[in-house]
Amino acid sequence: MAEMIKIISAGGTIDKIYFDANSEFQVGDPQIHHILAEANVALDYELESVLRKDSLDLTDDDRQLIFNKVQVSPQKRIIVTHGTDTMATTARVLEGITDKVIVFTGSMEPAKLKSSDAIFNVGCAITAVQLLPPGVYIAMNGQVLHAAQANKNLKAKRFESSDGEGPILSKV
Amino acid sequence: MAEMIKIISAGGTIDKIYFDANSEFQVGDPQIHHILAEANVALDYELESVLRKDSLDLTDDDRQLIFNKVQVSPQKRIIVTHGTDTMATTARVLEGITDKVIVFTGSMEPAKLKSSDAIFNVGCAITAVQLLPPGVYIAMNGQVLHAAQANKNLKAKRFESSDGEGPILSKV
Amino acid sequence: MAEMIKIISAGGTIDKIYFDANSEFQVGDPQIHHILAEANVALDYELESVLRKDSLDLTDDDRQLIFNKVQVSPQKRIIVTHGTDTMATTARVLEGITDKVIVFTGSMEPAKLKSSDAIFNVGCAITAVQLLPPGVYIAMNGQVLHAAQANKNLKAKRFESSDGEGPILSKV
Amino acid sequence: MAEMIKIISAGGTIDKIYFDANSEFQVGDPQIHHILAEANVALDYELESVLRKDSLDLTDDDRQLIFNKVQVSPQKRIIVTHGTDTMATTARVLEGITDKVIVFTGSMEPAKLKSSDAIFNVGCAITAVQLLPPGVYIAMNGQVLHAAQANKNLKAKRFESSDGEGPILSKV
Repeated sequence: MAEMIKIISAGGTIDKIYFDANSEFQVGDPQIHHILAEANVALDYELESVLRKDSLDLTDDDRQLIFNKVQVSPQKRIIVTHGTDTMATTARVLEGITDKVIVFTGSMEPAKLKSSDAIFNVGCAITAVQLLPPGVYIAMNGQVLHAAQANKNLKAKRFESSDGEGPILSKV
Repeated sequence: MAEMIKIISAGGTIDKIYFDANSEFQVGDPQIHHILAEANVALDYELESVLRKDSLDLTDDDRQLIFNKVQVSPQKRIIVTHGTDTMATTARVLEGITDKVIVFTGSMEPAKLKSSDAIFNVGCAITAVQLLPPGVYIAMNGQVLHAAQANKNLKAKRFESSDGEGPILSKV
Repeated sequence: MAEMIKIISAGGTIDKIYFDANSEFQVGDPQIHHILAEANVALDYELESVLRKDSLDLTDDDRQLIFNKVQVSPQKRIIVTHGTDTMATTARVLEGITDKVIVFTGSMEPAKLKSSDAIFNVGCAITAVQLLPPGVYIAMNGQVLHAAQANKNLKAKRFESSDGEGPILSKV
Repeated sequence: MAEMIKIISAGGTIDKIYFDANSEFQVGDPQIHHILAEANVALDYELESVLRKDSLDLTDDDRQLIFNKVQVSPQKRIIVTHGTDTMATTARVLEGITDKVIVFTGSMEPAKLKSSDAIFNVGCAITAVQLLPPGVYIAMNGQVLHAAQANKNLKAKRFESSDGEGPILSKV
């Protein structure tokens, strides 16, 4: 059996539910649990729902909370599901933690939509967190980027590396 | 921009379509193309549909064909979508190729079903093919296994390593 | 509260599940139950699973069984979910029952597929069974036809009336 | 061929798309077109998108516009897709039109969600508009109600008849 993976859910589009003028909530239960069950994953993981916010509403305190949860985790492989608008900002706050593999992911479309990038991105993150050395990464759109270089391109609805270096690639 | 990834489609459950007594075909167009489009991947890839068969029907000639397609590919990162029943058999035939990263994936349920492991597994394979050193691998159920050790556990509907070693993990 | 509706499930494509060389079953649990739950219907209904067969495999005895189940039903409004290939044949067997509203429906694509006509057809049948006078009908493709005139057009994947009269329409 | 059905789209939840802090639009293209195509309906229909609003935002002028569109329509069978919160209000405004069959429908969950009542409700409306005599109706949750008696029960997320009479039923 593989080591246990820790999953921290911090809200964001991936967990958005339909809300209208009569609704109270906008961000629902962590969807990653359903995604992993549907994929019948042979993994041991622990899920903790830490925040349920649009990432544009995250405060410095919220980021400190995520930092603390990751730092105290006995697990060394950690996935953080997070809204995309400030995913890179939060990821950089975690760069001080150097003994763990930390992979951020999320989605541009809610997991509850018929058409969404959520399942695919979680598949990428689950794989990246097992294969990469310690560090902080963003797994989105089929690419894995170093948190320090990753930025959301709002227009293209994609993440890209600010230095044009592109995704992390093994030597071949 | 990342290097181009080569995708070889060899049929299998992932591409199965609904067929009945009046249908002619059982395995349809490669679904991986739709999966990558829906995930809005920022990747450059080339897709070649080589076989459209249930993997129980693959012959030695079919496996030689897949071997040849991989060997002559100018791309060094290659994904093969394949039926699960004989995925490990085909993967081992390719172990003679040592200068490429070759990742097999597929699904237990057709990609066209509402509930399927196809999207997730493709996300895993796309990530594995970028991060791993040359070799032949199977990416299924959230784990990446060496082809030499991978076996389908028919009852559990999962792949597992025959030596109990578990999935490939980075040092952390 | 409306009168109770009786639903008889006789198998067919609507209930097909994915099966492969290692599977035992081809027709699964009645999907209409999930469809009605997802639509949050405000209806009182009773579901009975009578047969689980491709409709090409139905025998005269099977049709007699369906006839008997409908005839003894205390409910006057009855939906029969059924495979499309011989739906018209079975429906005509029931024309001897003249004191009930009997609506056949099913689907060309399994309800478990991402893209299917199953939910839509069930919505049509549920409405038709409440609005029509006693008789035997087929509700498919957005039309309601008299069983006596309905035929499957295999090529167009639709039902049509053999006399070219078209669907049942109110006077307006 | 059946008579042509006129479909008027007035926005509402059924057409809602995912929007976030960076989005401009909240109500998208009419989804009923995709629903009818997926169901492979054998119907002749004309679709007109008249409004793209949450129904709580509809004004008296908007309702007059819908009234006018229905009144001038050469087609005698008309479906109006509409938000649920004020569907009954708009439907009652149309009661002055007595020579047409007018059926309102919509959904509690957007059609773009994996789980939604949209397809089912459209199936109900398409059937009701063909089978009912002239009048104004609401087809939701598997029931057809007279517009004059229909009310949304916000808590139960269903429509019900205010006089407890229940749905329209044929004599049997």
